[in-house]
Amino acid sequence: MLETPCVVIDLDKVERNIHRFQAYLDKHGIANRPHAKTHKIPAIAKLQLKAGAVGITCQKTSEAQVMVDAGINDVFITYNILGEAKLERLVAMSKRATLSVSADSPVVVRGLSEAAQNAGVSLSVLVECDTGLKRCGVQTPSEAVELANLIAKSPGLHFAGLMVYPSSVAANDFVLETKTYLKLAGLHAERVSGGGTPQMWQAHSFSEITEHRAGMYILGDRYSVKAGAMTLEDCAMKVQATVVSRPTSDRAIVDTGSKTLSSDLVGLAGYGVVLEYPEAIIQELSEEHGHVDISNCISKPEIGERISVVVNHCCPVMNLTDEVIGIRAGLEVLRWQVEARGSVL
Amino acid sequence: MLETPCVVIDLDKVERNIHRFQAYLDKHGIANRPHAKTHKIPAIAKLQLKAGAVGITCQKTSEAQVMVDAGINDVFITYNILGEAKLERLVAMSKRATLSVSADSPVVVRGLSEAAQNAGVSLSVLVECDTGLKRCGVQTPSEAVELANLIAKSPGLHFAGLMVYPSSVAANDFVLETKTYLKLAGLHAERVSGGGTPQMWQAHSFSEITEHRAGMYILGDRYSVKAGAMTLEDCAMKVQATVVSRPTSDRAIVDTGSKTLSSDLVGLAGYGVVLEYPEAIIQELSEEHGHVDISNCISKPEIGERISVVVNHCCPVMNLTDEVIGIRAGLEVLRWQVEARGSVL
Repeated sequence: MLETPCVVIDLDKVERNIHRFQAYLDKHGIANRPHAKTHKIPAIAKLQLKAGAVGITCQKTSEAQVMVDAGINDVFITYNILGEAKLERLVAMSKRATLSVSADSPVVVRGLSEAAQNAGVSLSVLVECDTGLKRCGVQTPSEAVELANLIAKSPGLHFAGLMVYPSSVAANDFVLETKTYLKLAGLHAERVSGGGTPQMWQAHSFSEITEHRAGMYILGDRYSVKAGAMTLEDCAMKVQATVVSRPTSDRAIVDTGSKTLSSDLVGLAGYGVVLEYPEAIIQELSEEHGHVDISNCISKPEIGERISVVVNHCCPVMNLTDEVIGIRAGLEVLRWQVEARGSVL
Repeated sequence: MLETPCVVIDLDKVERNIHRFQAYLDKHGIANRPHAKTHKIPAIAKLQLKAGAVGITCQKTSEAQVMVDAGINDVFITYNILGEAKLERLVAMSKRATLSVSADSPVVVRGLSEAAQNAGVSLSVLVECDTGLKRCGVQTPSEAVELANLIAKSPGLHFAGLMVYPSSVAANDFVLETKTYLKLAGLHAERVSGGGTPQMWQAHSFSEITEHRAGMYILGDRYSVKAGAMTLEDCAMKVQATVVSRPTSDRAIVDTGSKTLSSDLVGLAGYGVVLEYPEAIIQELSEEHGHVDISNCISKPEIGERISVVVNHCCPVMNLTDEVIGIRAGLEVLRWQVEARGSVL
């Protein structure tokens, strides 16, 4: 009997999720570059690569470091890398693996160029385009081309394409327009990297996007289910918890709180689905307590009873736990350390 | 120059916060039992004990284990402990340290009694009372006395008192009534444990409460400031971050997101205060990006610039980082591993 709270991953489901999406992308001739920020476990990245992924995506240099140290040799770091220490680590790593990075400003491009020259390496750089998320990214196709030009002219750098997130009609249109200008400038976007689990099954409808970065698709969560990309049945990750208190007939308190589930609501009501009691609502989280409204439950969980929670957002949950338990047919078959957990530099 | 994002703690402020609250509780004859779930670092717990705390509080058995292993010998675990593995660890630990635990149901009391008997130890148990938080806890003074009676009669257990959270007028009234009934039953609540940082300076106004558990008071956060318990100047913890993108004149993106700041809003608008740009609003978090609205800032941060963030809630921030950097007068003087990070069992 597993101690609770713990994060359990159904390996059969993980494999099914990996293969199903790989087959879809293969069918449509789109490269698969899954986002390892979701799982942070080299062994899972290797399953994705073995199934046909061209490489992986990481969000931070330190995360990439863990993956490269584990023998993974193609990593796209979708982040503006700034600062001497990070740049030094990046170029050192680029001697051991095929790295690409994104950039959205001349400041970032200059830093990359300088570091690459000092180390005598060549870095592939994609221009990050803001196509509606309002996060990082150049704002217009002409800004994109201007930055692509700077990258192409910068010693030590290679202009490798465009990056958007999430994939969308707007992103595709942005890319189409940018490609026209790039052609005029004598440049070619060899990669156009899109992404997102919610959009995963529409990847083929975005004509200009050559590779897809999805993270959550292997583990699943309520967010992916709500987006229509997965079913509750597809969700491989569950948090197991124990009912520790039943103070009233309408309230159960479980031993999973924000320090295991995270506080991410991602637009949903409540903090997870209790599989055994679908009418239950995890209405509030303390750090180590989940406050569950069981007023709508026909039968009610008792103190000591186990429950399984499909979480709102799997990424922060993996980043809170040191270890996950791999199961098949309900039985533990392995434990994985979340090796890149806490990698934020 | 520190790499970002990182969690920095001003040790002069930590010490000032520790001593100021200890002096207040000393003045009013209230025992101090700070909550170590906030910092999860034995070295900080030892500073609290050295200043006069009677012991510490932990939220989980595994957290207590880290503290006891580090030589701390009085720990109150404010949690219903259930399940063979946890109970075995608890009673084993009770041979090395003075432990007390809380309970709010006969199921929990029976488990504790059985484990204590098997190990030949005596465990001190406080009855957890729900005085308005609607989390764990018995619902009425008569339920409290009933459970106290069960504890007192259970082999291996010692009835040690009552526990409430947070301290409040309602909690004090609940305790007063319970104590009347306890007296009739021939029982005595030697400890009445209350708590909370928001209520810390009102602790003396709750006549029945003999010890106070506060966590956040040493590090500080927007939550404690909003509650009026601390000033922004008192806050010892800051997350240092770097501006990685300035896509528009009104938007800055920084390298601290929900994987360092957590998604805790605790009723506040935005995800932290940017000390250098108080008009800036951290309006959204991705996992590794903070989306900052700088439209109201007179001067605007540039790419590569450092900022310092006072976080919404310090507890989850400590639980996300493996290491914190201790500074004095702005200079790094030590690094502490967050030794009990991830301890949820």
